[in-house]
Amino acid sequence: MDTTNRKGMEKLYLKRLFILLFLFPASLWAQDALSETPVRSTDTEAINEIVTGLNTVWMLLAAMLVFFMQPGFALVEAGFIRTKNTANVLMKNLIDFMFGSILFWFIGFGLMFGVGGFVGTPHFFNLDIMDKVIDNGLPIEGFLIFQTVFCATAATIVSGAMAERTKFSMYLVYTIFISVLIYPVSGHWTWGGGWLMNGEENSFMTNIFGTTFHDFAGSTVVHSVGGWIALVGAAVLGPRIGKYGKDGRSKAIPGHSLTLACLGVFILWFGWFGFNPGSQLAAATGTDQTVISHVFLTTNLAACAGGFFALTASWIKYGKPSLSLTLNGVLAGLVGVTAGCDLVSPFGAVMIGAICGIVMIFSVDFIDHILKIDDPVGASSVHGVCGCLGTILTGLFATEEGLLYGGGYNFLLAQLFGTTVVGCWAAGMGYLIFKGLDKIHGLRVPNRIEEEGLDIYEHGESAYN
Amino acid sequence: MDTTNRKGMEKLYLKRLFILLFLFPASLWAQDALSETPVRSTDTEAINEIVTGLNTVWMLLAAMLVFFMQPGFALVEAGFIRTKNTANVLMKNLIDFMFGSILFWFIGFGLMFGVGGFVGTPHFFNLDIMDKVIDNGLPIEGFLIFQTVFCATAATIVSGAMAERTKFSMYLVYTIFISVLIYPVSGHWTWGGGWLMNGEENSFMTNIFGTTFHDFAGSTVVHSVGGWIALVGAAVLGPRIGKYGKDGRSKAIPGHSLTLACLGVFILWFGWFGFNPGSQLAAATGTDQTVISHVFLTTNLAACAGGFFALTASWIKYGKPSLSLTLNGVLAGLVGVTAGCDLVSPFGAVMIGAICGIVMIFSVDFIDHILKIDDPVGASSVHGVCGCLGTILTGLFATEEGLLYGGGYNFLLAQLFGTTVVGCWAAGMGYLIFKGLDKIHGLRVPNRIEEEGLDIYEHGESAYN
Amino acid sequence: MDTTNRKGMEKLYLKRLFILLFLFPASLWAQDALSETPVRSTDTEAINEIVTGLNTVWMLLAAMLVFFMQPGFALVEAGFIRTKNTANVLMKNLIDFMFGSILFWFIGFGLMFGVGGFVGTPHFFNLDIMDKVIDNGLPIEGFLIFQTVFCATAATIVSGAMAERTKFSMYLVYTIFISVLIYPVSGHWTWGGGWLMNGEENSFMTNIFGTTFHDFAGSTVVHSVGGWIALVGAAVLGPRIGKYGKDGRSKAIPGHSLTLACLGVFILWFGWFGFNPGSQLAAATGTDQTVISHVFLTTNLAACAGGFFALTASWIKYGKPSLSLTLNGVLAGLVGVTAGCDLVSPFGAVMIGAICGIVMIFSVDFIDHILKIDDPVGASSVHGVCGCLGTILTGLFATEEGLLYGGGYNFLLAQLFGTTVVGCWAAGMGYLIFKGLDKIHGLRVPNRIEEEGLDIYEHGESAYN
Repeated sequence: MDTTNRKGMEKLYLKRLFILLFLFPASLWAQDALSETPVRSTDTEAINEIVTGLNTVWMLLAAMLVFFMQPGFALVEAGFIRTKNTANVLMKNLIDFMFGSILFWFIGFGLMFGVGGFVGTPHFFNLDIMDKVIDNGLPIEGFLIFQTVFCATAATIVSGAMAERTKFSMYLVYTIFISVLIYPVSGHWTWGGGWLMNGEENSFMTNIFGTTFHDFAGSTVVHSVGGWIALVGAAVLGPRIGKYGKDGRSKAIPGHSLTLACLGVFILWFGWFGFNPGSQLAAATGTDQTVISHVFLTTNLAACAGGFFALTASWIKYGKPSLSLTLNGVLAGLVGVTAGCDLVSPFGAVMIGAICGIVMIFSVDFIDHILKIDDPVGASSVHGVCGCLGTILTGLFATEEGLLYGGGYNFLLAQLFGTTVVGCWAAGMGYLIFKGLDKIHGLRVPNRIEEEGLDIYEHGESAYN
Repeated sequence: MDTTNRKGMEKLYLKRLFILLFLFPASLWAQDALSETPVRSTDTEAINEIVTGLNTVWMLLAAMLVFFMQPGFALVEAGFIRTKNTANVLMKNLIDFMFGSILFWFIGFGLMFGVGGFVGTPHFFNLDIMDKVIDNGLPIEGFLIFQTVFCATAATIVSGAMAERTKFSMYLVYTIFISVLIYPVSGHWTWGGGWLMNGEENSFMTNIFGTTFHDFAGSTVVHSVGGWIALVGAAVLGPRIGKYGKDGRSKAIPGHSLTLACLGVFILWFGWFGFNPGSQLAAATGTDQTVISHVFLTTNLAACAGGFFALTASWIKYGKPSLSLTLNGVLAGLVGVTAGCDLVSPFGAVMIGAICGIVMIFSVDFIDHILKIDDPVGASSVHGVCGCLGTILTGLFATEEGLLYGGGYNFLLAQLFGTTVVGCWAAGMGYLIFKGLDKIHGLRVPNRIEEEGLDIYEHGESAYN
Repeated sequence: MDTTNRKGMEKLYLKRLFILLFLFPASLWAQDALSETPVRSTDTEAINEIVTGLNTVWMLLAAMLVFFMQPGFALVEAGFIRTKNTANVLMKNLIDFMFGSILFWFIGFGLMFGVGGFVGTPHFFNLDIMDKVIDNGLPIEGFLIFQTVFCATAATIVSGAMAERTKFSMYLVYTIFISVLIYPVSGHWTWGGGWLMNGEENSFMTNIFGTTFHDFAGSTVVHSVGGWIALVGAAVLGPRIGKYGKDGRSKAIPGHSLTLACLGVFILWFGWFGFNPGSQLAAATGTDQTVISHVFLTTNLAACAGGFFALTASWIKYGKPSLSLTLNGVLAGLVGVTAGCDLVSPFGAVMIGAICGIVMIFSVDFIDHILKIDDPVGASSVHGVCGCLGTILTGLFATEEGLLYGGGYNFLLAQLFGTTVVGCWAAGMGYLIFKGLDKIHGLRVPNRIEEEGLDIYEHGESAYN
């Protein structure tokens, strides 16, 4: 055995020597000459493929979670309104997403991410065009889905503010406008490579501010767009019957189920872990891993701070810790931190969450009692006000460029400018559309239907039997 | 410039020559000597390992999501029935999954994926046997879990159609039969390597049709199996008391909570992103990434089209856009696209969703008014009819083999044949089992219990207090 | 042998010297020259990076799922109590998580995982300190989030047992104590590198038992800690008004919605697929893949067995299969298998689930009728009793060290010892805190508030309108 072994070994070493001296270099040269690609390319290519694979899985997981925010919104809105309009508000949340998905695939995606100045070139469901324009290495259909669920989020925010009095047919028309016009255009300015986030030399933003607008996952791009449309929609509609007394005083109209609202908020919170960490669109590199972990942490801390400070503020302001305001506080914190979750420290996230949670309480009060706009679920405060506020606060709390960290005023002003521009666009277009629809056909159901409930008259069904 | 370049090139080639002839082989030997493992294999092995890792994570994520479809089904069924039978239907959904999990692990998995013609060889919870048979590189226990949640889905579809009048004990017995007989056998014919999907030369399908039956994620294998058993179960049971008047006219018995039903549908939709994209069982290669993204997109578009066209059809047919029919339309679209989500284009998915959404409306009407079979939740239309229809439509819309894309009739006929065979098996076995149980022990609760509600009499509890 | 060895060693050292002096530097230069980047290090580094990436994604997915257990707990507790206290119990579940997240980030994380004997050194939100202490290769902020959601789970278990009669302000104080004291300290002993799981030579556990305490995902560390505090909390509070008649007999106070409870259990079950498989904290290697698949399977089988055997036991004991006991049976199985889901076989998991499901039925009865402690949701039985029981049963069913597999008594005794120590700590500290709070301020709301409901008096809102 020993001899055989030694002989075998000798033979092996001889073979190796021969390989090392002659065959291997020759083979290397041959490979090199044949393929003009580096020797080890199979491994490197396999690694690149799996990097994209991991990023794709992360993006699709995020898309699932953001999709799941739809029932979150549906439950929050259903919970905060009365039994008799529940089926109607659920239906609106469904139609938002169905229309949004089809229209964004058909045209919105091109308007947002296509080539163009004010707006991208529509692709009319030709995804090959988009694949050439968008160069992030991810499968184009996966990226479309990811962007679709964000568009649907912006659309669905509005249904709550306009609940209990809007004609279903008119809501159907509105949802087309947001999916093919309002959201894609301001989306193009920001995430679509447009002027607000264009940081190239001599671009508008670098010339004026020396920096660009920053909105990591959509405090402004998604939430404030939805929130401002919600506000003007509720304003154009007018308040629900019985909301303001003869003396003009606001009366609370309690929702039919805080349990549903609470479940909805938890689902939204869960979905936000796709919304924010998922917006990194990658998890493979060390940097990605740090960023998604950081964003997960800041997102969660802001939600907790938002909820806790809204609870405390409601306790101080109204004498009792209110569940419904705590729920909206959690959402306020989440909306607020979405713009800067990647730039602020955990402490900054707590501050943004706390400020948004408190401001939300006063904003709900202000819109209800001073502006006398009837927003049944507080969507304009939570998504509009806190979406803007969070984006602006990023200019204070960003650890590199933020004012409080010695970054000067430039970034803060850029944030202020971006939120204002997007806000004006969304509110302005929303106002034009709702006013137009109201003139042409009437936005609002007749009083009798409003009093007896939209479910039976609009849908022929009651939610509960 | 030219000269410099040429000089540079010469230098580079000289350097490379030196490397190739001497240093590189030396370095390889050195590395070899240092580590005593082949140079390239460590990396390649590590890459292969992580490829399996990513695929395993994708499969387990999908399994989680498909598991989560269980509460989706439970809520849809609970929402569509009356308060007094809610605890009973929830219990059935629990027992489906509990029995399914244990029995599929014990024997069903072997019957479905084991070696055999008509049916696989049972493994009696010896997973080592299965590990040798199934060669997909994935951990066998993970693959078992993935298949278990699919089996449970087929089982749970039936509970809704038989709701409000079935004895709990009899339902317990039925669920054993589906988990150890009906589902594994037709599952063996299709996904278990059996004759319907066997594309080897001289196999039955290639001899007759020149192609095999295709069901990517289970329109037929899972949904239509559940749907046909649901239909015969409801037929054998007979209608609920009061469902058909003395004149034979069908009366609507509205469910107790559309909010629950809507949440259930959203949860199912969410879970379907595991059901369909997850059925690729892989995410690591470029092809996998494209497929799972594509399947995600087609699945979502079909759901949206199904919901929207059901909404429109209900609006035209009944004068009002119905929430409950829209919800079933979403499910119809999802069920329909499940077979061909990998083969059809996004446009084809919209078509399949739309057709299924519309046909579902007429199917519910037909089963209710013409066949006079009382299916409280519409499971036979949604899962049975649309499961078959979607599988057959794949023969039209598949972009390679489909009739509309010039693929000829062969694939369409193969699809038609496969759905018919599986449908006959499921409906036939379901009929035998339910008729047998009815003869032996009686399937149905006494009238008094049905009128006062199954919750109190069968379980000693009311769902609501 | 000695000579051969020495000769071999000499040869090896010579070879190495040669390599180090000449070939290796040359090879490095060669590599550098060929690609301008080191050939192998890029790939190997890229592979290591993506391994961490996949593990990070798996950990964050698990963290999301465990977060989602919060609404699961909230719904179970809300469903099992009366309408008039629903908002209050939801609020408690929110505050648990909000306080837990902020406090664990601020100090609890350091107490649990920092350097130290009895307890770790607080880090006062300086995560850089923790990054140096914890060396698992995962991003520190992601690991913090993962641990945070586990801490919050322990905290939230208590709210159900103390429902319908505790002052909200007092509950607020309690939740601080669990997040900064009770959970982190016993967590330090176990998962924080402390004495109960320290397997180094001459450590306490190896000296006494020759092995260490094992709790894979927290049957004891998370669930029994929450469960014991729940038990003493309920005991200190005393029963709800009307719970025990004048004759001392226990009266059932049915919850307001089994539908919510059932949805809650399904959500918890879903979340548990993060809780248990996620606790591996890795998915990249072949071993990881096998472990997470195995843990997924054992977790699910134990849940099914727990539910089914509780159903059967309730059928035999009370004459009817009870939904609420089946739901608690599923949770009992899940809690029970959490300690040993990695060590037991699928069959062992079924056994643990079955035993826990049955014991839970008797434990609920014993605590209610014999101890006369009023735990409205059965948290002390499900989490306390089954948490301990499952940990101890791991000493029987573990396939390597377990008593039934010939492993002897050592491991069983170590499990028994660990559960006892942690149980004494949790129950003892819980008792001191609740007794103290009761003395200082009174834990319990006045009778009038308890009778009319905590929602209106404590929060100024009703959950339902």
